[in-house]
Amino acid sequence: MERLLIEETVDKVGKKVLVKGWVKSVRKHGKIVFFDVGDRSGILQVVCEGEGEVFKMASSLGSEDVVGVFGEIRKRGERFVNKKIKTGRVEMGAEKVEVFSKAEGAPFDIEKESLDINIDTLFDYRAFSLRHEKVKAIFKVQAEIAESFRKTLRGEGFKEFFGPTIVPSATEGGADVFHIDYYKYDAYLAQSPQLYKQIMVSIFERVFTIAHAYRAEPSMTTRHMAEYIGLDAEMGFIEDYKDITAMVSLVIKNVFKDVGENCSEELELYGASLPELSEEIPMVKLKEAQEIIFERTRRDNRKEPDLEPEDEREICKWAKEKHGSELVFISHYPTNKRPFYTYPDPEDGDYTLSFDLIGRGVEWATGGQRINDYQMLIANIKKFGLDVKDFEIYLQAFRYGMPAEGGFCLGLERVTQHILGVGNVKEGSLFPRDMERVDVRLSTIQKKKKDNG
Amino acid sequence: MERLLIEETVDKVGKKVLVKGWVKSVRKHGKIVFFDVGDRSGILQVVCEGEGEVFKMASSLGSEDVVGVFGEIRKRGERFVNKKIKTGRVEMGAEKVEVFSKAEGAPFDIEKESLDINIDTLFDYRAFSLRHEKVKAIFKVQAEIAESFRKTLRGEGFKEFFGPTIVPSATEGGADVFHIDYYKYDAYLAQSPQLYKQIMVSIFERVFTIAHAYRAEPSMTTRHMAEYIGLDAEMGFIEDYKDITAMVSLVIKNVFKDVGENCSEELELYGASLPELSEEIPMVKLKEAQEIIFERTRRDNRKEPDLEPEDEREICKWAKEKHGSELVFISHYPTNKRPFYTYPDPEDGDYTLSFDLIGRGVEWATGGQRINDYQMLIANIKKFGLDVKDFEIYLQAFRYGMPAEGGFCLGLERVTQHILGVGNVKEGSLFPRDMERVDVRLSTIQKKKKDNG
Repeated sequence: MERLLIEETVDKVGKKVLVKGWVKSVRKHGKIVFFDVGDRSGILQVVCEGEGEVFKMASSLGSEDVVGVFGEIRKRGERFVNKKIKTGRVEMGAEKVEVFSKAEGAPFDIEKESLDINIDTLFDYRAFSLRHEKVKAIFKVQAEIAESFRKTLRGEGFKEFFGPTIVPSATEGGADVFHIDYYKYDAYLAQSPQLYKQIMVSIFERVFTIAHAYRAEPSMTTRHMAEYIGLDAEMGFIEDYKDITAMVSLVIKNVFKDVGENCSEELELYGASLPELSEEIPMVKLKEAQEIIFERTRRDNRKEPDLEPEDEREICKWAKEKHGSELVFISHYPTNKRPFYTYPDPEDGDYTLSFDLIGRGVEWATGGQRINDYQMLIANIKKFGLDVKDFEIYLQAFRYGMPAEGGFCLGLERVTQHILGVGNVKEGSLFPRDMERVDVRLSTIQKKKKDNG
Repeated sequence: MERLLIEETVDKVGKKVLVKGWVKSVRKHGKIVFFDVGDRSGILQVVCEGEGEVFKMASSLGSEDVVGVFGEIRKRGERFVNKKIKTGRVEMGAEKVEVFSKAEGAPFDIEKESLDINIDTLFDYRAFSLRHEKVKAIFKVQAEIAESFRKTLRGEGFKEFFGPTIVPSATEGGADVFHIDYYKYDAYLAQSPQLYKQIMVSIFERVFTIAHAYRAEPSMTTRHMAEYIGLDAEMGFIEDYKDITAMVSLVIKNVFKDVGENCSEELELYGASLPELSEEIPMVKLKEAQEIIFERTRRDNRKEPDLEPEDEREICKWAKEKHGSELVFISHYPTNKRPFYTYPDPEDGDYTLSFDLIGRGVEWATGGQRINDYQMLIANIKKFGLDVKDFEIYLQAFRYGMPAEGGFCLGLERVTQHILGVGNVKEGSLFPRDMERVDVRLSTIQKKKKDNG
């Protein structure tokens, strides 16, 4: 008999069907056993009565056993209806229960509404903790964000590309890069697809990629991971950096729309609301932001080259109060705080035509206009103390004609995290990597090498 | 004035517009200069007459200069119509030409219909050679394949996920794995997302990912790369491996349909036709295939554990002649030729419920049913001489209840290559990596380390 997806049982009252899935919450009441069975489409309550084989089988079931259950779909009594779920008006009277895979005893209770385990346990049992409805929800939202990003950009004439992650030199900051033993040579893990997406502008004008990026930052904070996913886009023939912020705004608005429409249950699990946005996301220069913060708080960070975390929170408050937007662009970061390819402000060369998108007190995206003039780019590479030889293929793109261009990157885990209001960016990653953990805690499987630093 | 995309000029006859793009093929005929300008949407012929500023400017243009051109769109004379392109019935009479970025002299002629450069030059100038229409076409087709794969699987209830590429141990074959200096520990680049996609079956039942995979194979062939892109899918609650081959077939048929509909110009550039398929893709066991080959050729490879390249070509011939299909599934490869997680054939434990999809003489996809029983999996890990401790997180997925499951992987570069009939898989990769090259030839920027082998 063919398996029916659980969401389809609502149309099968009076029919006998076979469903398959994982057992959830077994409850015994005298001679009745209730359990839920969950598959990718939903959850169905199963009722096993009597003293026969089915009752015995059902009595032996445990959480997460994989089963097939055959029986009749019937309407629940009015007072037993569960309005929270799509299948809350029906249940199955089981006639046959088959166990396909027996689960061992769980390390912690996966059926509680909130997982009250610490973050190490969460990741020590990652393949198990991901089964929790709230944890699973994070990655349903994540899949939606990625698809929304691609859909919007395809609609705007962007072409998807697949760039490399192995790179020949540590070009964007030597200290934070992972080294690979590459046959008899050295190679490195890309810190971003930046150089390749710029090259691709000279091929397709408008490009995007969802790419892994690697940062060997020696930090164990709630904001850092060694491997993360970037939603990267780049576009040519721009007038200025405002064409880029407009595209970021469009992407973000559509992400909120798509997540709102397709992930309402997941948002509800977190009591999360999508960030409020004004018609146009407000934009202020870094210096202006620092003035605003000074005026509001008398905290004087006006000489700092960046916003401190408390400044980021304050400017978000301001944007919400003044513009009704939970997101705000900060532009014109100092030249020495941005990478070599960032376009300097023609009106003040100490600042750049770059921006961050800040929301709910933290960074969501970063971007800007890039230097597209070949000679100016070479001069800047030298000015930054980098070696022109390390940029051979990249420079070709500019040597043979490149329009004014720029782009942006959204951190997939961060956007997921801040839409749902999750505390640690690592919870926004299926299998997060940091200094101490690659799936398992590295100290449990390896000895540390001798300390070189 | 706002820029108009070139494809939109066909509706603007009699109107003055501004287009922007790259200069292609400048032709001078006395007091007339013709050139083409190309943007992401198409190519437009521009005519510059007279002796004024425009003519002078146009006379100085070179291939790949980035320009803005303002002028009136007009119909071409009937005998000047170019039916090969969408914009072949119109041209622009230029009134203003502005150069945004001047291209340096090209290393080779990018406008010839076929690039007659060797493969080293192709990649030494990769950012430039990608501008060639035929080279560019490969990556338009590639973007279409990736999107088609995702669209089909989303329609079948698959959820996209983003797994890691840094892994804690060299689990699927120690010799071919890249080592990373991971802080004070060792880590490795994933040879595939295999273990993670299997875990994800226990979360979402049906999952897919487009993921980078890394193989440190010491081979310089036309079939090997150090980094490639896998179109990976995995699904639970299968009856047997035929549910997997059916899903592969659906994906492939839709890829051919989408590429056929959306990339007809690119296929034409290569004189390529999409592979012929029968209603159902034929499937034979490896042993049967070897018998067929023996009967057809008297070449006796019936005791071999795999198909030799000439066998793969022969069985493809057979499939086409006998079934009218250019693709054929070969199933039941020997246990010792497949990874530890492959499900053994219950009828003959020396063989597995695995398959390859072969087409046009080469492998397109690989897949099979996996072992989902926790104890059987542990026994197999040991039997393969691997260490159970290396699979801690992976094994959790099976310990806590896992349905019968299986999956497949299509190599994105290979599928692209064989649809277009390109000779070397590296041409199907934007920035291919092999033993000798990571963008540039490594020997030109680094000394070899001392030879350890």
